[in-house]
Amino acid sequence: MLDQPFTIIEGGITAPEGFAGAAVCCGIKPESLDLMLLASDRPAAAAVTITKNAFRAAPTFVTQEHTADGQAQVIVCNSGNANAATGRQGLDNARKMAALAAEQLGVECPDVIVCSTGKIGQQLPMDKIQGGITQAAIRLTRDDPDSLARAIMTTDTFPKMVSVQFAVGEKLVKMSGIAKGAGMICPDMATMLCFITTDLAIAPEILNASLQQDVELSFNCISTDGCMSTNDTVAVLANGAAGSAPIESSESEGYKEFRAALGYVTQELARMIARDGEGATKFVEIRVSGATSWEQARHVARAIANYDLVKTSLFGEDLNWGRIAAATGAADPELDPNRVTINCAGITAWSHGEPASFDEAQARSAMQADEILIEVDLGIGDAQATVWTCDLTYDYIKENVGPDG
Amino acid sequence: MLDQPFTIIEGGITAPEGFAGAAVCCGIKPESLDLMLLASDRPAAAAVTITKNAFRAAPTFVTQEHTADGQAQVIVCNSGNANAATGRQGLDNARKMAALAAEQLGVECPDVIVCSTGKIGQQLPMDKIQGGITQAAIRLTRDDPDSLARAIMTTDTFPKMVSVQFAVGEKLVKMSGIAKGAGMICPDMATMLCFITTDLAIAPEILNASLQQDVELSFNCISTDGCMSTNDTVAVLANGAAGSAPIESSESEGYKEFRAALGYVTQELARMIARDGEGATKFVEIRVSGATSWEQARHVARAIANYDLVKTSLFGEDLNWGRIAAATGAADPELDPNRVTINCAGITAWSHGEPASFDEAQARSAMQADEILIEVDLGIGDAQATVWTCDLTYDYIKENVGPDG
Repeated sequence: MLDQPFTIIEGGITAPEGFAGAAVCCGIKPESLDLMLLASDRPAAAAVTITKNAFRAAPTFVTQEHTADGQAQVIVCNSGNANAATGRQGLDNARKMAALAAEQLGVECPDVIVCSTGKIGQQLPMDKIQGGITQAAIRLTRDDPDSLARAIMTTDTFPKMVSVQFAVGEKLVKMSGIAKGAGMICPDMATMLCFITTDLAIAPEILNASLQQDVELSFNCISTDGCMSTNDTVAVLANGAAGSAPIESSESEGYKEFRAALGYVTQELARMIARDGEGATKFVEIRVSGATSWEQARHVARAIANYDLVKTSLFGEDLNWGRIAAATGAADPELDPNRVTINCAGITAWSHGEPASFDEAQARSAMQADEILIEVDLGIGDAQATVWTCDLTYDYIKENVGPDG
Repeated sequence: MLDQPFTIIEGGITAPEGFAGAAVCCGIKPESLDLMLLASDRPAAAAVTITKNAFRAAPTFVTQEHTADGQAQVIVCNSGNANAATGRQGLDNARKMAALAAEQLGVECPDVIVCSTGKIGQQLPMDKIQGGITQAAIRLTRDDPDSLARAIMTTDTFPKMVSVQFAVGEKLVKMSGIAKGAGMICPDMATMLCFITTDLAIAPEILNASLQQDVELSFNCISTDGCMSTNDTVAVLANGAAGSAPIESSESEGYKEFRAALGYVTQELARMIARDGEGATKFVEIRVSGATSWEQARHVARAIANYDLVKTSLFGEDLNWGRIAAATGAADPELDPNRVTINCAGITAWSHGEPASFDEAQARSAMQADEILIEVDLGIGDAQATVWTCDLTYDYIKENVGPDG
């Protein structure tokens, strides 16, 4: 951490200057926070990444339209209902959600980002949404950021937030992010909800290019169950309220600091999501090295992360490295096992085309850790990638048999 | 069934003329049958398909070598130990297994097919294997085919076998198959062990081409957990003992009957494997139609079959069609939801870009069936594909947390 050009700070999503928010229980979920508003006091540079699922939710279309000009000011988000697979009425409702937020906060409707998360295939209860937006709009504050992180949770067991501060010239700039994940975390694109605020001044196209790159290395590197959601959205608002000189190219003062901060915020939130996978008891980091390309390394790492037999043996605290070998070999039939090295929890299990001998008692003990590192070296190149996941447990099934997900 | 040019018959893998076998408990597994020999009384035309996993097991290399000439006479198979990820010693052991069987049965070593299934990464106990082969060789019989099907089981809950009879000219020909599956059943190639015997006379190249095609439509259309095994092998021996005129091309008398029989035997065994997925409580058939190609249809069907959130809701008997929509959209981001129709258990849940209204009580009742049909019409072409799978349950995890798989 010593070399990072930023500092981790206290404070949540409203820590950057000019941002305020409010969370309410509008009644979609029985007794929890289920709607939040997050607003900048001025129009902000905006960038988003959105799920590629063909059945993507209505609000993702509205958000895409409203951020096409690289500017936004408000994020409105409900949990408990995904407004996905809801047809024309769903699209009308998403537009109405944006219009209601715009009206209540006195901003332009095309500056509102709309998100929903929760059950697929049900229409939003618009009377409750309307009541919630009205209620939240009059409660905007900088003092209750935790409740915003809580209002977007579904089966998450803890709110996910991180804040940093960095210098652009002589000005201090803050950046803060919240995220929700837990189920439907998958390997094929932006994979959950994440909102990032910063009082940095930055050109929208630089913000957008940076976000796309960092999402590849963070949210697109986590997988809890290999299921791609209909609603995944990552949105960043940069309102310039810190008064720093605008970042207009990769040569601008503060660009490196900004990239380091955005990389840290997105990866840290991604790791929190993997750690909080539905029913998870273990956090698992999979590092694939010695690949011919980053794409190959991530492909193999994801394949291991999605291999149910690997995930159940992690839950069982069993060093079943043969399943890691099987997952690796299944991911890329062209690999040469003689060049592959497999380490799990610090124990070398396979190298030079032979199983390695190791102490069984030591292996059992190593597998009991809460965090497990799986390292696979393909032995054919210099590229590497890291993917984060969790184990597959009884509780994953318990949480997903019912009608609420 | 009325139009099929074959008859389903009693009798197992030794029903075709000239085949005999024996199964023993050699001691790899504590108290169950774990080794079998299956032999033809004369050299037979042979065809195999083998897993594409880069970490494929030692016996698959030996089997591939020994069937390269299109001829084999004996199959030796153990369960309880996969002889996979076992390096040079594993390969030596697989060769030794073939040599022992050849010696005991007085056949050529290159006419022996070798298979193993069970735990990955452990060396075979060759003393036990040797004792088992010696014991089995002196017990060959046509009268105990059930024990052969049982000897190849691992976590299977029932032996899988099917036998048919068809005419080639005036001669009656028999074909019989056994299979094991249960875990590590995956979507990317031959997916388990399956042995088929027939007393048909057929040119090896016709047998091989037919098998490759039928494996695509059967074993490569099932998925229980999306995990590709290191040991998957399908082997057919055709010894000509029925005295029928040899099938030498697709114009030969009996070719159609043979293809119908082989198609039935492979698909029936594939369905049994899906039905017996580890911990499964439901058999699920996924039919994707209206695709632009068979490949697209099977890709989408497999994606639904492998989507853990769909599989858990099937276990929960919940018509969570939104997850089917999400799986479909994740499989192919280019699909147009307005053209897609989704039916589950006979209930239309999504059509013309809108959720369809249905009776909730009727849906609950329909989802309680032991067999569930999911139908997805992509609305863009005429191609279709069917994939078979099962639900994801607590028992799947229970069976896979431990060190025995």
